[in-house]
Amino acid sequence: MSVEKLALIMAAGEGTRMLSNLPKVLHAVCGQPIVEHVLRAVDSVCKQKVLIVGHGKERIMEACHGQADFVEQQPGGWGTGHAIRSAASMLEGKKGAVLITAGDMPLVLPETYARLMSEVEKGYAAAMLTDHVDNPTGYGRVVRENGKVCAIVEQKDLVGEQHNIKEMNASVYCFDIEALLWALPQLKNNNGAHEYYLTDVINILYKGGREITTVPVLEKSECCGINNRLQLAQAEREMRRRINARHMREGVTMIDPEATYIEPDVSIGRDTVVYPGCVLQKGTIIGENCLLLPNCRIMNSVVGDNVRIENSVLLDARVGDGSTVGPFAYIRPDTVVGEKCRVGDFVELKNSNIGDGTKISHLTYVGDSDVGEKVNLGCGVVFVNYDGKNKNRSSVGDGAFVGCNVNLVSPVNVGSDAYIAAGSTITEDVPDGAMAIARERQSIKEDWVSKRKMEGKL
Amino acid sequence: MSVEKLALIMAAGEGTRMLSNLPKVLHAVCGQPIVEHVLRAVDSVCKQKVLIVGHGKERIMEACHGQADFVEQQPGGWGTGHAIRSAASMLEGKKGAVLITAGDMPLVLPETYARLMSEVEKGYAAAMLTDHVDNPTGYGRVVRENGKVCAIVEQKDLVGEQHNIKEMNASVYCFDIEALLWALPQLKNNNGAHEYYLTDVINILYKGGREITTVPVLEKSECCGINNRLQLAQAEREMRRRINARHMREGVTMIDPEATYIEPDVSIGRDTVVYPGCVLQKGTIIGENCLLLPNCRIMNSVVGDNVRIENSVLLDARVGDGSTVGPFAYIRPDTVVGEKCRVGDFVELKNSNIGDGTKISHLTYVGDSDVGEKVNLGCGVVFVNYDGKNKNRSSVGDGAFVGCNVNLVSPVNVGSDAYIAAGSTITEDVPDGAMAIARERQSIKEDWVSKRKMEGKL
Amino acid sequence: MSVEKLALIMAAGEGTRMLSNLPKVLHAVCGQPIVEHVLRAVDSVCKQKVLIVGHGKERIMEACHGQADFVEQQPGGWGTGHAIRSAASMLEGKKGAVLITAGDMPLVLPETYARLMSEVEKGYAAAMLTDHVDNPTGYGRVVRENGKVCAIVEQKDLVGEQHNIKEMNASVYCFDIEALLWALPQLKNNNGAHEYYLTDVINILYKGGREITTVPVLEKSECCGINNRLQLAQAEREMRRRINARHMREGVTMIDPEATYIEPDVSIGRDTVVYPGCVLQKGTIIGENCLLLPNCRIMNSVVGDNVRIENSVLLDARVGDGSTVGPFAYIRPDTVVGEKCRVGDFVELKNSNIGDGTKISHLTYVGDSDVGEKVNLGCGVVFVNYDGKNKNRSSVGDGAFVGCNVNLVSPVNVGSDAYIAAGSTITEDVPDGAMAIARERQSIKEDWVSKRKMEGKL
Repeated sequence: MSVEKLALIMAAGEGTRMLSNLPKVLHAVCGQPIVEHVLRAVDSVCKQKVLIVGHGKERIMEACHGQADFVEQQPGGWGTGHAIRSAASMLEGKKGAVLITAGDMPLVLPETYARLMSEVEKGYAAAMLTDHVDNPTGYGRVVRENGKVCAIVEQKDLVGEQHNIKEMNASVYCFDIEALLWALPQLKNNNGAHEYYLTDVINILYKGGREITTVPVLEKSECCGINNRLQLAQAEREMRRRINARHMREGVTMIDPEATYIEPDVSIGRDTVVYPGCVLQKGTIIGENCLLLPNCRIMNSVVGDNVRIENSVLLDARVGDGSTVGPFAYIRPDTVVGEKCRVGDFVELKNSNIGDGTKISHLTYVGDSDVGEKVNLGCGVVFVNYDGKNKNRSSVGDGAFVGCNVNLVSPVNVGSDAYIAAGSTITEDVPDGAMAIARERQSIKEDWVSKRKMEGKL
Repeated sequence: MSVEKLALIMAAGEGTRMLSNLPKVLHAVCGQPIVEHVLRAVDSVCKQKVLIVGHGKERIMEACHGQADFVEQQPGGWGTGHAIRSAASMLEGKKGAVLITAGDMPLVLPETYARLMSEVEKGYAAAMLTDHVDNPTGYGRVVRENGKVCAIVEQKDLVGEQHNIKEMNASVYCFDIEALLWALPQLKNNNGAHEYYLTDVINILYKGGREITTVPVLEKSECCGINNRLQLAQAEREMRRRINARHMREGVTMIDPEATYIEPDVSIGRDTVVYPGCVLQKGTIIGENCLLLPNCRIMNSVVGDNVRIENSVLLDARVGDGSTVGPFAYIRPDTVVGEKCRVGDFVELKNSNIGDGTKISHLTYVGDSDVGEKVNLGCGVVFVNYDGKNKNRSSVGDGAFVGCNVNLVSPVNVGSDAYIAAGSTITEDVPDGAMAIARERQSIKEDWVSKRKMEGKL
Repeated sequence: MSVEKLALIMAAGEGTRMLSNLPKVLHAVCGQPIVEHVLRAVDSVCKQKVLIVGHGKERIMEACHGQADFVEQQPGGWGTGHAIRSAASMLEGKKGAVLITAGDMPLVLPETYARLMSEVEKGYAAAMLTDHVDNPTGYGRVVRENGKVCAIVEQKDLVGEQHNIKEMNASVYCFDIEALLWALPQLKNNNGAHEYYLTDVINILYKGGREITTVPVLEKSECCGINNRLQLAQAEREMRRRINARHMREGVTMIDPEATYIEPDVSIGRDTVVYPGCVLQKGTIIGENCLLLPNCRIMNSVVGDNVRIENSVLLDARVGDGSTVGPFAYIRPDTVVGEKCRVGDFVELKNSNIGDGTKISHLTYVGDSDVGEKVNLGCGVVFVNYDGKNKNRSSVGDGAFVGCNVNLVSPVNVGSDAYIAAGSTITEDVPDGAMAIARERQSIKEDWVSKRKMEGKL
């Protein structure tokens, strides 16, 4: 029988203080569900992960599908001890170590899980994460006899000298599997709440002659569980601090890291400067030496080197090296902007390809189209991609010049080096190098204004 | 004679360190004048409130009209004692309790006013708000004899052991009205500043055999008065913390509560997520399960459930359930957006009604108009509501399709299911189900570009 | 020989932990290179400043050209002592005092440099900036004998009681020039790193019978050097705090000074209110009683009194008294907006003059043009300033009315009080008071929609 490592993650609680329709562990911290942070941290130590689910189990199982196995907390009992008993079948017949942690503690570090696991591998029956705090009110205290951990005593059960104990139980453990399986059936619920407490396992093991050790937290924040939205915001803040510190250590400048919001899987190249108010979301890759001026929201997009973006929204898009975007641009999914392009103010791009060196300076919409290289789209150009029934696709050839306030009624193809006069609505293809115009000549009515004023109409 | 409760609020000071043309107590904290925060907190304890005014009294009386009575600080004296004497006529002949507080202390909690009042109702001649601080420099100290409060001694008058007193006077009191009226005439101004100090009343009462008690602050911040703009910013920060904590406790998620700016009377439904940079201003009601992405400023507007808004400004508007707004939309006063609408990027709406399911996706202005249900307004559409003299109103019927870059020259009515071709300027009504077009046919000049280039014109 | 004051600023280090292509001292804090903050602070005490350069010297010399002299760190040695020896030629034959500071310490206050200088002028051979800290790990400690400073001992060389010393050396000094020149040749590099330590000069002077004094920091932050991007962000935060406190003391309201980003040389008038997310950059002057709503980025621009700006970008522009800008406006370089103008949403201005009282309300681009007073530019107006080859200039006279979605094809002149009908493309001059129109009449096709639907085309 091989020696195994696995993790049980408690995620069955209702989380009533969140006052939410969403199960607690699915609330997001830095854009990811709380429980995914736990899964990722545990994953570096053991691949086999079991979520113990109950309240909202369908949504949790859907969200975490493929990331963990699931076991349902059995009816007929309450408390952490009962939750773990529900998962005992996953452990039976196994030798090795089992991490037990909480699905609402996103800040426990991977290194901490590794340290706990390592203590059990050395021979301890259990290793528990603890911290020394000035005010441990509300937490279970770590009680020792002759220096050896012998029990965890809950706040309400403290007696005498135990009130002075400053070492608190963070509720994250590693157990020797056989030891845990031996101890679990001995748990009793003869307390006021009729709950089975996992913490009682410590004293059972101690009485059984086994040794328990403690592992101190690396950071105070590791102990933070999330029970309400204030704690959610605090966890977000701490996670943000960690993520931003990592980017800064790796050569990214942040004007104000406290006001810069980056999700865990984003990467940013060296010498890129990020201004406050930027929100960089999942899947985003930013190149080197970019300038992200304030208030860019960029999701799942790839931005090259030497790109400058200001106060713009990019979703599922790519922007090539040396391009500039914004201020006030909106680049929607499936858009690829080439190198050295200019996507200016009040410009929307959607499901389009923009060739290298093309300028789309202002007040323009490009949708469902292919625009060549070195094209100049004037101010107010609209790619009329929707006719009320279908979305149609247009193209503009390299070097073309499209005048201001021009409509390109899709599907229509504008040739290379073609020239379209300002104010034209284009409904038919324009050959390469041709000029297209579709507008009325100007006429003048002299003294019209004074006449209208005399008539009282102006 | 009935027992009364009333409050005197000192608001006569000049506030010179604000360096402002605006009277100090009218500066805003979280969007409301400082003094209104005081009035609101006091109001939960006593309805009869008297503002003692002096500097800038006209503007204060205008701003607080209907929220309080006013008494003018009389000429011929200085100091807090003089200020209260000026209001003594409001107290004469009354029995009961009078709160005395400062118009520049917006952070005193309603519970604190209630606790002070309650002590006087128990029989104390005075109850004063105090705090124990490490460094009370600058504050009056609470002096006791045999454990009983006997005096407040100002910083410069401290002698001997008094220098070690850590209990400071927060300058918020409740007095038995008769006791106060008995003590006030005994105040003297035989000090360097020739001021009458209200704090001397404490010793006068003590010498007169009356008992005084203290009430400790609930939060350190309660003691903060505002004398300059740094303190104004600190008060704003603390008020922001309180407001945001309340919303979070009630089920609202905030990505960064320190960068989320919500005025006191805003309400937000459960499971709504608010991103940083959002500013929610007076009178705003946000529904449940909304997503407010970064940098929304929303004032006096009602937003339904399941609405998504990004980087937009909404003023005096309504947005129905399930609609999306922005990024970069501007919804101006007297606009009602229906349910499941899309108000996209670079769209301005003003004084208009937008029916359910209508899409206004980009670069469009709708002003002074009524747009039906399931209408599609193309990109660049302009409702030409101003002719240089008058604002006129237009309408678009249900199911109509208005093509891109179309001008609707108001007043004009577009019928239901009508269709307007892109690039048209519409000046006459369009019947139901009709197509309207107003544009020139396209003409092509072959090889025009190369010729122009040869001529050096391109 | 006159008594001189000069400063040596060490800026030769590579700054490897920045992981940057930019020399460390050229990274920006609040928009200015770190070394410029040092130069500015030193400048208040001594005009003659010498930068000791090495790594990246070309870029540093270019950036600081005219602000300092330069000396290159000589090859063949390492350490701060070697760096100063490299600059000894600048000192020879001079009497007076020399400040020695680090090019990566932007937070040392001018007052601190003055205090150091003043001690040497009193007769001390050296004055060194120090601080008492709980945990001085990593810093050199100030060792005294009989109360007199006798040496600086580095962390790794501490012995016995020296481990308890809490006074650390901040690495900022003033020396008597002759004393320094006498001591420098005696430095030895017989240590593990083979470096010459400037700190050894202290003990050499002491052994030579000279007296050394210490000057305590005024603010803890003065000791902060910048070696990585986290420290860069911390310095930015501290500098921001200082700058914003100054503005608040002078009568500016900031809703959230922690989220307001102002560069050192910006000025702001009294009673102006600045919302969070505003970024005010070099050369900007804001008048009195302005309202800067969230997310304005304003660079090198002059804004008058009583101006209101929201979520807009202004670069190298001027805006006159009483005007409003935004939300979502972009004013580009060389634009002058007059008084009481309205520059509304989705408006771009560039290289243009806008007369007093003119309204440019929405979705408009004005480039390379002169617009008179009290002009009304409708929604969607475009100044077509680029024909594919040249940029051309247009003008609009006072009182003119330009209808919606009008193109003005430059160069074109619109006369005073002229009126241009919506949807027109104007290519020829419009006389004063004339009406110009260039659009097709509207035609209607009844029942077109139902026919198209029957044909399956809609």
